[in-house]
Amino acid sequence: MSDPLKILAVSGSLRHNSLNTALLHAAQEVAPAHVQIELYDLADIPLYNGDEDGGEHGQPAGVGRFKAALGAADAIMIATPEYNYSIPGVLKNAIDWASRPIASSPLNGKPLAMMGAGGMSGTMRAQFHLRQILVHNNMLVLNKPELYVVRAWEKFDSERNLTDEPTREQLRKLVEALVAWTRRVG
Amino acid sequence: MSDPLKILAVSGSLRHNSLNTALLHAAQEVAPAHVQIELYDLADIPLYNGDEDGGEHGQPAGVGRFKAALGAADAIMIATPEYNYSIPGVLKNAIDWASRPIASSPLNGKPLAMMGAGGMSGTMRAQFHLRQILVHNNMLVLNKPELYVVRAWEKFDSERNLTDEPTREQLRKLVEALVAWTRRVG
Amino acid sequence: MSDPLKILAVSGSLRHNSLNTALLHAAQEVAPAHVQIELYDLADIPLYNGDEDGGEHGQPAGVGRFKAALGAADAIMIATPEYNYSIPGVLKNAIDWASRPIASSPLNGKPLAMMGAGGMSGTMRAQFHLRQILVHNNMLVLNKPELYVVRAWEKFDSERNLTDEPTREQLRKLVEALVAWTRRVG
Amino acid sequence: MSDPLKILAVSGSLRHNSLNTALLHAAQEVAPAHVQIELYDLADIPLYNGDEDGGEHGQPAGVGRFKAALGAADAIMIATPEYNYSIPGVLKNAIDWASRPIASSPLNGKPLAMMGAGGMSGTMRAQFHLRQILVHNNMLVLNKPELYVVRAWEKFDSERNLTDEPTREQLRKLVEALVAWTRRVG
Repeated sequence: MSDPLKILAVSGSLRHNSLNTALLHAAQEVAPAHVQIELYDLADIPLYNGDEDGGEHGQPAGVGRFKAALGAADAIMIATPEYNYSIPGVLKNAIDWASRPIASSPLNGKPLAMMGAGGMSGTMRAQFHLRQILVHNNMLVLNKPELYVVRAWEKFDSERNLTDEPTREQLRKLVEALVAWTRRVG
Repeated sequence: MSDPLKILAVSGSLRHNSLNTALLHAAQEVAPAHVQIELYDLADIPLYNGDEDGGEHGQPAGVGRFKAALGAADAIMIATPEYNYSIPGVLKNAIDWASRPIASSPLNGKPLAMMGAGGMSGTMRAQFHLRQILVHNNMLVLNKPELYVVRAWEKFDSERNLTDEPTREQLRKLVEALVAWTRRVG
Repeated sequence: MSDPLKILAVSGSLRHNSLNTALLHAAQEVAPAHVQIELYDLADIPLYNGDEDGGEHGQPAGVGRFKAALGAADAIMIATPEYNYSIPGVLKNAIDWASRPIASSPLNGKPLAMMGAGGMSGTMRAQFHLRQILVHNNMLVLNKPELYVVRAWEKFDSERNLTDEPTREQLRKLVEALVAWTRRVG
Repeated sequence: MSDPLKILAVSGSLRHNSLNTALLHAAQEVAPAHVQIELYDLADIPLYNGDEDGGEHGQPAGVGRFKAALGAADAIMIATPEYNYSIPGVLKNAIDWASRPIASSPLNGKPLAMMGAGGMSGTMRAQFHLRQILVHNNMLVLNKPELYVVRAWEKFDSERNLTDEPTREQLRKLVEALVAWTRRVG
């Protein structure tokens, strides 16, 4: 039960003050002691170009680092904004790289939980798309609890600490559910 | 009827030998004489970062060029590959930039037609997502005909000319339908 | 401008006290004088069975009435609950009947606006699915404004009158936008 | 390993000659000896009406039988046609009943595999929607293999026996994967 468990946490936003990144920091705070959550920054993953994927040069260095980090994790956690009723291109682009080649992708069969901080619906449509996207690599996506942080700007203080207690509690339960799910299927 | 009409064509793939880009070249060939189709390359559009969007510096130069080209067109045409059951991150990223700020986006209310060259389903799932994404900016997306180029590698020759006559005919009808749709709602 | 316009309004719920049905009654109240909105009850449309569709017996009588009403309307309006993150089976079943045979369906090319009364997200996922469904018959679905009535039980009084003024105003704008859209594309 | 396992199989079509129902009969043929697949007919499940759901009368008798059968199964298997780019209303309607009340639904946490027999895409869009729908009740949906029976009429003989050997083999693997998945998470 208390074996350490490593979760790689990915924010779909590159913005310095991103509330989705802040949500992942809060996940670190509420996680049980034996659960280590590491944040990964997607900034050095270039735009996908099939001409730079595979062949003698392999994949770009930033992609290699991302895939190694994914491979070393027991589970993945994604916090996504919603842009244009879907996930950001930046996040999709990172998934596109990591998913290939499919025979050896570190995404394959990996447990994952998603969440999102947004406006009126808390990134509901983005998460709706993300679940479909992750079926491609057979990711084992946690169903419940779902976490939609609505009117996110009201839930964090000016230093982007998650101060809304009900949301912290939902987040704690989500992390615990991901840990249990990973023990079960990972 | 014969007023010149300008269509901006965007490929969701950066790959040099992309069959989706080739499909747009074929669209240029089959288009009526008064319809001008210009291809736009997404390679110089950086990863979206909210910190570089707006403020005193405006948006990156590549984004500005893309938005100007979108704004100058009477209609848009997208050819998308399918990656991970959705559109490529590269294409989504370009849409994310172009959609903002929503009050002045050149996407707003613009007629658009989509198509895709792929494998077993001809990018069906990618197009399913793309239609949902484009509602955000009130794009007027052509419903019919739909164009799913299945087993695309069999439809082009080694120089990436679209040699499959039924597909050329479908493409011709799609371009004509977009022209008629643009006359109606543009 | 003032030619009378006929809208057929369909509720996705059969429940007597349905707030989605109540939303359509409110649409009748806020509609301009020259716009006639008629509610259609789906209760007498049987479960779809291909063995009863076509052939010498045609379609069931309830289906025939529904299709005639759709055909006589200038535009359609749907108010949908969200069940299981999608539209109700009852509504989907009515669409299944009405869509067939596709060559002569009264849905083809008809303008339509959707809305929904629900809980936390106001039927957002149901509407996300409904837009995709209606592409099959080339329905001309209004993009904006979108209407998601969240926490619907707070917006109606005990007689199911829509008493929330901001929602009434959104509804009024939606009806007006559908009228303008129908003038443009109908 | 060889404990008997009970799978309830549901066809989304009521048609007597349905190829989706035939696909489930074929699943019975290819299943391992210790796996019992029982087909369930949705014909006696009425249109959902909230006024007949719960209260002193409970749910209609047909719904009660369906829910009891779901509850007695170790896993569920659905074969769905594609109507209007989604699952049939008949199937959605049965899910709507079975999902309620959510606190005691027999769908909750149950392993499930889906498949479909169709035309050009083999019900791809229907399955895309179905996966999203089933998240509501936390169903544990098998990701892989996916089974899209394209041009289904070519894969069955005139008595609706599945005669296409590659499809039979895919179906066998799907059943085996569902059994393994049920052992793992059920």
